[in-house]
Amino acid sequence: MEFKKKVQKKWKEKKYLCIGLDPVLDKIPKSIKGKDKVFQFNRAIIDATADIVCAYKPNSAFYEAMGASGIEQLKKTCDYINKKHPDIAILLDAKRADIDSTNEGYVTFVFDYLKVDAVTLHPYLGYTSLKPFLDRKEKCLIILCRTSNIGAGEFQDLLIKNKPLYEVVAERVSKSWNKNNNVGFVVGATYPKEMKTIRRIAKEMPILIPGIGAQGGDLVSSIKSAKKNFLISSSRGIIYASRGKDFAKAARKEAEQLHNEIKQYINE
Amino acid sequence: MEFKKKVQKKWKEKKYLCIGLDPVLDKIPKSIKGKDKVFQFNRAIIDATADIVCAYKPNSAFYEAMGASGIEQLKKTCDYINKKHPDIAILLDAKRADIDSTNEGYVTFVFDYLKVDAVTLHPYLGYTSLKPFLDRKEKCLIILCRTSNIGAGEFQDLLIKNKPLYEVVAERVSKSWNKNNNVGFVVGATYPKEMKTIRRIAKEMPILIPGIGAQGGDLVSSIKSAKKNFLISSSRGIIYASRGKDFAKAARKEAEQLHNEIKQYINE
Repeated sequence: MEFKKKVQKKWKEKKYLCIGLDPVLDKIPKSIKGKDKVFQFNRAIIDATADIVCAYKPNSAFYEAMGASGIEQLKKTCDYINKKHPDIAILLDAKRADIDSTNEGYVTFVFDYLKVDAVTLHPYLGYTSLKPFLDRKEKCLIILCRTSNIGAGEFQDLLIKNKPLYEVVAERVSKSWNKNNNVGFVVGATYPKEMKTIRRIAKEMPILIPGIGAQGGDLVSSIKSAKKNFLISSSRGIIYASRGKDFAKAARKEAEQLHNEIKQYINE
Repeated sequence: MEFKKKVQKKWKEKKYLCIGLDPVLDKIPKSIKGKDKVFQFNRAIIDATADIVCAYKPNSAFYEAMGASGIEQLKKTCDYINKKHPDIAILLDAKRADIDSTNEGYVTFVFDYLKVDAVTLHPYLGYTSLKPFLDRKEKCLIILCRTSNIGAGEFQDLLIKNKPLYEVVAERVSKSWNKNNNVGFVVGATYPKEMKTIRRIAKEMPILIPGIGAQGGDLVSSIKSAKKNFLISSSRGIIYASRGKDFAKAARKEAEQLHNEIKQYINE
């Protein structure tokens, strides 16, 4: 099923939550043992939350930190979601972007090997370089527009004819890159004002919203600014809600609370 | 040995060539067999060229395309260079950049697991996010400034108070990010005019120059513009000089020719 169909189905069911699967070895509960404990941890989180999420978002960095075996755990996690929950989208947060011929390698990694539905990308090299990604019509290419981090404005706020760079990125990408109607944006919950501008430009395009929770982003104003077709991403606040044997139950509780909050503000 | 010492030693010996180790399975000579044929291929190229190079540059995308086993081959390749040629720098061309806490995962991957000496990074998220990389004083963080691809100017040429973005990136990074004297730039050989501007701003900072060969970059004007402290990167033109059993010999011949050309223009 293509990315768009997966998320639109979930949005109709008022599911907007995207859980970040970002495992760190020394934060995984000690009750989980064995060589594939990262996968076991992820699977337990997935089993406990699948009925209320819109998508899962593993971030590649956390798996790469464990080397080749981390990539194996990532692959197992993606395979599990695709098999058990084929209607839930997987977004790989990988923030890639190289020249065109090299991007073909990344495309193979994310779409053919891991078989995820979407990937986050840097805009700096421009459209021509990202074409191997953009040509995959059934996927979603989520371009970094306004990132959630402190100091995001160092380059993103630079003015080009009185318009900040992030706005120029939003305009160019939505106007010229979205020929296959398969592009979205990353906009941090920490910047609701910028979110409003980007939603106006992006029209119906999906927006991935990180920065809720540990980073201090504001849920209510993010939702009010993003309006529709968004995914609210949360990771640490959910997956490490408890470090005990009850971690999956605790994750469920946190996820459900955030899911209910989102639903409430959506309806207002 | 820290990155700077490795390359400075090579530069003194008039070695400026950086060979891109970018293996593609169906381009590897059929004479190489077995599970670790990517490593065998790389090792043969390394053994045939180590005495004339400044650095090796594996690009992560080519290994990721092969999944977890590709990462194993990458690790084996880096381990081999570090053991056999501890005076040759390894640059991982990975073009990463996430928010700060996530970058710690990438730092672990590139510097602690693969044990490379340098990595290429996107500037879009700004200084604060890249701090986990920049804090590694003994390494080199090579920031994408002017990339070699066609269409690089889409964002990189946007004018900010009459200055193109790539120039603003060069200025900010060289002024504020280089506190540990461990930052460099990527500037494509396809843009010699921009190279001149960036060298003026970057002063003594190292410049990685891709785009020679397959991409059509101009060697002579790149060298004349970059002047010193640079690495000329070439991949396809060298490693696939022959697809037969003589591939290592053919790679050596191509590498030597480029090495000699560089030396000649440096001396002019």
